[in-house]
Amino acid sequence: MDNIINFKGLKLVLLDQRKLPFKIAYKELKDSSQTAEAIKKMVVRGAPAIGITAAYGYYLGSMEKEFKDFKSLKIYMERVGEKLLSSRPTAVNLKWALNLMGKTLKENPGLPVDKIRDNLLERAEYIKESELAANKKIGEYGASEFEKISAGKNKLKVLTHCNAGALATGGWGTALGVIRSAFNRGLVKEVYADETRPRMQGAKLTCFELKEEGIPYKLITDGMAGYFMSRGEIDTVVVGADRIALNGDVANKIGTSMVAIAADYYNVPFYVAAPVSTFDFNCPTGGDIVIEERSHEEVLVINKKKISPEGTKTSNPAFDITKKSLIKGYITEKGVVKSTYELQ
Amino acid sequence: MDNIINFKGLKLVLLDQRKLPFKIAYKELKDSSQTAEAIKKMVVRGAPAIGITAAYGYYLGSMEKEFKDFKSLKIYMERVGEKLLSSRPTAVNLKWALNLMGKTLKENPGLPVDKIRDNLLERAEYIKESELAANKKIGEYGASEFEKISAGKNKLKVLTHCNAGALATGGWGTALGVIRSAFNRGLVKEVYADETRPRMQGAKLTCFELKEEGIPYKLITDGMAGYFMSRGEIDTVVVGADRIALNGDVANKIGTSMVAIAADYYNVPFYVAAPVSTFDFNCPTGGDIVIEERSHEEVLVINKKKISPEGTKTSNPAFDITKKSLIKGYITEKGVVKSTYELQ
Repeated sequence: MDNIINFKGLKLVLLDQRKLPFKIAYKELKDSSQTAEAIKKMVVRGAPAIGITAAYGYYLGSMEKEFKDFKSLKIYMERVGEKLLSSRPTAVNLKWALNLMGKTLKENPGLPVDKIRDNLLERAEYIKESELAANKKIGEYGASEFEKISAGKNKLKVLTHCNAGALATGGWGTALGVIRSAFNRGLVKEVYADETRPRMQGAKLTCFELKEEGIPYKLITDGMAGYFMSRGEIDTVVVGADRIALNGDVANKIGTSMVAIAADYYNVPFYVAAPVSTFDFNCPTGGDIVIEERSHEEVLVINKKKISPEGTKTSNPAFDITKKSLIKGYITEKGVVKSTYELQ
Repeated sequence: MDNIINFKGLKLVLLDQRKLPFKIAYKELKDSSQTAEAIKKMVVRGAPAIGITAAYGYYLGSMEKEFKDFKSLKIYMERVGEKLLSSRPTAVNLKWALNLMGKTLKENPGLPVDKIRDNLLERAEYIKESELAANKKIGEYGASEFEKISAGKNKLKVLTHCNAGALATGGWGTALGVIRSAFNRGLVKEVYADETRPRMQGAKLTCFELKEEGIPYKLITDGMAGYFMSRGEIDTVVVGADRIALNGDVANKIGTSMVAIAADYYNVPFYVAAPVSTFDFNCPTGGDIVIEERSHEEVLVINKKKISPEGTKTSNPAFDITKKSLIKGYITEKGVVKSTYELQ
């Protein structure tokens, strides 16, 4: 899948992930405000994909107006950066990509505005390509890890939560990239996909990708993961990450921590697959990560119908924190970091 | 709520729980086959409520035909018993209630058939009333346990999974009965109701009951329970049970075991509330409990729309097993049995 985030002719064209798997539709974005809105509304989602999208959105911001000099461009771009940064609070890749874009902007203040714009576009393209390259490496390192788990015996049954696939990264995928690479090496028998309430990214996006790839899979409700682990039907778990704190705690889609706790209980190795850009070295622990609270409609309404009596209250934290001690290893493009790592 | 299972004029009238919370509708059953079908299709659900319903269905079976003597009645009733027993395989109360009915049938073979029928109806009424009385006692014992947890300090935030309320028991409720009794004693601040995919009994039935009772509650997705525990927002968990093995392992609605494992991880006391009739002394361990596999549609379709691409496979185990070591106590009508109990 290479049509997830495309930039051409001053337009950012996103595959509208809210309509999958039933409809392949695209959303055209012409400026930074539309880009921020698309991130907020989850036309695009997944930490790395958000980062790439924001980078292009930043470039679009630089094209929105005429600027007489670098100073006026810089002032304007500060507002653009803030707008994009505030579109989603939890994924660190957004901040990371915008930081890179901001650096590129300020790197050569003496250049003509047009040349700076060219550099911004080049930087956005570079971010997209380097994420894809990182994904592929993550896939290979992860597949080698799976080779060890399978130990030349049975093919593996692998559980994943939410969607950390091509759709989440603009290319190959992190958790699903590992599964893809391992499947290509003949190591994967079947994937168990958690449906991932409330937004059902597992049911909608992960199943869509697995079907496209011809990888055998089974959809389960989030509460079933423990049951299948208890019966020895899950050999390993791999998930993505939205932010990894300095101490190794991981923010990922709500429900991830319960999967990790159950995996620990049933002795199933639990991996996090993420590019190095997901590590937030300014964030000491999971407790310091801001958890986005999303619309209550996402919980209360499914397929346009309420699931609960009128007046029912809810909460909708989009992420939770999985403690480092539950994680067997972090699969990155630099190799597999075992959970014994200590940076502090 | 006292209109859940009503018997009058040779008709068993069930509140149709599949239509709640949006519609109050009743289903009239005229014979044992309709009763078995209603249990299978979950017009009524919840282990104790299934037991009561089956008892009335058994009585209806005895009224379906003319019998010239006890022997012909007995032969016919064996088929009726088997049909009702096979309607759902996991809840032990079904077996327990049918055993009682079978004993009543055979107790006095010398009696006229009509008198035996009267005894069967009386026994069914007795089962219903004694379940209600047991529920009320469970509520009181559970409330006293909650009193200890709250220790005269804050009111409690209590999580429950699925529905073990009046709807599940024909009367007061087991897990929700405890919450109700504790709320009446001023011990409960708020209830967190797991939505309980795939059938959403939490969202539909538990929220309905809590709303009716005026108990403050919040609906969450199944994957969120761990998140709220991690933030100290859940003081205790109480769930019902469909069968309790001799060693203390508990079969309950799918997803229960992940809640119990998370509660253990976060040091949140986890209780099972169930009448003594839920203990199956013929079943050594959780591993010996048959887990019902239900229709795949329940997972794949919500509000009449598919949630996943065409061709997606799934599984639908209706229950899972929670290990005894995760359970702080069993709240029964005889008192609270602590998990240190050993019967073997």
